[in-house]
Amino acid sequence: MAPRALDYESLNENVKKVQYAVRGELYLRASELQKEGKKDATTGDFYLILHTSILNLLTNLYQLLLVSIIFTNVGNPHALGQKPLTFPRQVVALCQAPFLLDDPNVGLFFPADAIAKAKHYLAMTIGGLGAYTDSRGMPGVRKEVADFIERRDGYPSDPELIFLTDGASKGVMQILNTIIRGESDGILVPVPQYPLYSAAISLFGGSLVPYFLEETANWGLDVNDLRQSVAQARSKGITVRAMVIINPGNPTGQCLSEANLREILHFCYQENLVLLGDEVYQQNIYQDERPFISARKVLMGMGPPVSKEVQLISFHTVSKGYWGECGQRGGYFEMTNIPPKTVDEIYKVASVSLSPNVPAQIFMGLMVNPPKPGDISYEQFIRERNVICNFTEGAMYSFPQIRLPPKAIDAAKMAGKVPDVFYCLKLLEATGISTVPGSGFGQKEGEFHLRTTILPAEEDMPEIMDSFKKFNDEFMEQYEGHGGYSRL
Amino acid sequence: MAPRALDYESLNENVKKVQYAVRGELYLRASELQKEGKKDATTGDFYLILHTSILNLLTNLYQLLLVSIIFTNVGNPHALGQKPLTFPRQVVALCQAPFLLDDPNVGLFFPADAIAKAKHYLAMTIGGLGAYTDSRGMPGVRKEVADFIERRDGYPSDPELIFLTDGASKGVMQILNTIIRGESDGILVPVPQYPLYSAAISLFGGSLVPYFLEETANWGLDVNDLRQSVAQARSKGITVRAMVIINPGNPTGQCLSEANLREILHFCYQENLVLLGDEVYQQNIYQDERPFISARKVLMGMGPPVSKEVQLISFHTVSKGYWGECGQRGGYFEMTNIPPKTVDEIYKVASVSLSPNVPAQIFMGLMVNPPKPGDISYEQFIRERNVICNFTEGAMYSFPQIRLPPKAIDAAKMAGKVPDVFYCLKLLEATGISTVPGSGFGQKEGEFHLRTTILPAEEDMPEIMDSFKKFNDEFMEQYEGHGGYSRL
Repeated sequence: MAPRALDYESLNENVKKVQYAVRGELYLRASELQKEGKKDATTGDFYLILHTSILNLLTNLYQLLLVSIIFTNVGNPHALGQKPLTFPRQVVALCQAPFLLDDPNVGLFFPADAIAKAKHYLAMTIGGLGAYTDSRGMPGVRKEVADFIERRDGYPSDPELIFLTDGASKGVMQILNTIIRGESDGILVPVPQYPLYSAAISLFGGSLVPYFLEETANWGLDVNDLRQSVAQARSKGITVRAMVIINPGNPTGQCLSEANLREILHFCYQENLVLLGDEVYQQNIYQDERPFISARKVLMGMGPPVSKEVQLISFHTVSKGYWGECGQRGGYFEMTNIPPKTVDEIYKVASVSLSPNVPAQIFMGLMVNPPKPGDISYEQFIRERNVICNFTEGAMYSFPQIRLPPKAIDAAKMAGKVPDVFYCLKLLEATGISTVPGSGFGQKEGEFHLRTTILPAEEDMPEIMDSFKKFNDEFMEQYEGHGGYSRL
Repeated sequence: MAPRALDYESLNENVKKVQYAVRGELYLRASELQKEGKKDATTGDFYLILHTSILNLLTNLYQLLLVSIIFTNVGNPHALGQKPLTFPRQVVALCQAPFLLDDPNVGLFFPADAIAKAKHYLAMTIGGLGAYTDSRGMPGVRKEVADFIERRDGYPSDPELIFLTDGASKGVMQILNTIIRGESDGILVPVPQYPLYSAAISLFGGSLVPYFLEETANWGLDVNDLRQSVAQARSKGITVRAMVIINPGNPTGQCLSEANLREILHFCYQENLVLLGDEVYQQNIYQDERPFISARKVLMGMGPPVSKEVQLISFHTVSKGYWGECGQRGGYFEMTNIPPKTVDEIYKVASVSLSPNVPAQIFMGLMVNPPKPGDISYEQFIRERNVICNFTEGAMYSFPQIRLPPKAIDAAKMAGKVPDVFYCLKLLEATGISTVPGSGFGQKEGEFHLRTTILPAEEDMPEIMDSFKKFNDEFMEQYEGHGGYSRL
């Protein structure tokens, strides 16, 4: 019989090309081990990664936990014990159960400002959380997002150019699908990168054009390197059409400076690139030396022609920061300098899946418009936020290099694995520690990294670090033998 | 300056080709009128459509409202006044606000079985609703779905082959994206059809191969016509790879008989087609003469080789039936005879957007496993369900033909509109009644239909019907003149 349409050999090739490291081979193996009853001490995606070699990681970890550089929590914090903020949960619970609002005793369970907010958002819906909204999300929430952006950046924002989405990743995918026409369309993506971008570009049949972040310069971004990447792509017949920046960075943790952002925007202007600003970690900055600045603010400040010409899409989410409401799937994107006819096309395609989920739209409204001083719930909100920030200061976001001995690389090849996947699988089998190999994020030829998950509770750290160190020593012993390979 | 990547002329052509009638030009114009303060008496997507000509529609409407044939509620019922079922809302509210479960007085507000269910679902999560789940959805809910399918069909179902999604439409889109490799891949889609299919096929660059439902045979499905459609597509170089059935039908309302389903499955076996069974209206059948039968049940009953060979994907949702929880965005698809390697690919691509929203996963669990006789909330649940069923018996799901005079067709051409769009726009402007032109669903050359929305409250019907009739009379008067055109 001929292959059927859903037999593997006859699937859409772009689907097969998708690589998705964060939930790839390592994740699947970790899930299997979990099923088999092995304790997966660090399941989830809550990453602690350091700028140093693996050796330094092991020795300096405790010290670094106490130092505040750029601290970001990412991944799935609630799965690791981060408690949700009470106020937004009260509001959304009331919206789910609006009959509670008719109960004369509702005030025994819910503070008056949560009740008022629930009524505020229910009044925006037509029929409550069970009804589809406009495919761009509720106008009232989009207005609240626009007001938030204006307060943040000092420039007005238009709610008609803000679309709410089921998480930021859905927005990123829609915009890439709009841009990519075929494999000769290239998208500049930072390496290391969050694998969403490589996965989506494969799925839509485009070409990923990597630019390398400089490990030796604190994962900074050099515009000359960008030019080289574009030139190289062009020589292969690829038209670079857009550039992705992840600011603050994932998985590398850097915050772009205003000067660097200005260079990037000028580069986009010169090269006629759409800038996709993944700014989902903007709430994750707990240091003051280099604050988060949005690409839009810098763009607006540059004045014409750049501020009128460069097309920018900025993404945000309720999944990160001290909210961490990943499971709710709420996000938005804001469009700058996008012509109305294109906005219509994006609206049309958003309409095919009818509307983003409504509870998460309300979480987004609450995130951009949280309790204010004087509100009944303000003190508790701030207290909870601070607890989470202290908690997440333990999570530094970076990307350590591992130096693999040649014998280990050979052994990986024999096993049909990429070397860092090989290392991470061995680590997982030996210790139950679940990490993500750097090859999933992209890295320079011949270099290897890993992204490792930090524990929810500090008291579990010594045991994990001991077992990590023990594994690494034995691994190096096994594959270095007495060959004198220096691992730095 | 060269066109920028997000200027209209340089967008992905497949994006531009997407047509999405339900939220297309008419919807946008209705939204504008609503903004301008015009009362849009029938906004939303709650459709009443009849088998007869528009004339019969006007005269027989009241009578039909009292007759029970195949009654389905669709679209956005909560936006039109349908109240949500209390029990699932209580459960999900408690899951959103788990701190309520620690309150000794929680029993004053919530019945014990809702509290128990909330604990049941929270125990399935790792960290509550704020944490990503597995990209396929929580294993516990998928098990509940599998048990539901087994009870419904009498054949076991495997939870590993059930993926939860953000609404059924997201699942449909993912499966079509997996199947379609390019424009020579064809998908058989019923005409009239729900525009999700045409939109998604355009977006992924495939070819829609229409098969016509027979208006004169109660919108039935003739396998000989299918063969013709496939042969015709083949003559154009298109390989038909999959077939969509919508059962019960949208927008036409028919329920496929077991014999007809068997013919269809046999046809898929012979022609090597994947069958996509859109069964989202399975709860919308309020008559007994022709019950809903799932494609999977019929397939399993056919025995080998057909039952072992035909690849089937079945879709369901929390948005339809007496739940109508559209805004929550919950759905699932179940895979039958899909090889493990393909399941892995589908899993991988689902992982790119991390996980379906968690509250809607719980709604799905509750829908497939509702309160049972003896449960505290059972009586209230049944009472509420019956109220909704009575309410929605007023909503019959069908697709009336409108006969447009040649002068009206000419006038439409002059205005640059498809004739039925022209009619519907005029209707909207004159009366505020929002309908969907049949061209968005597909129809035979030279025929015109419309899908009209029914009112939430029966007492508003006379006014609407008067104004509809008045408009139609004036329209026909204007374009027929004295030319003696017969409109039936």
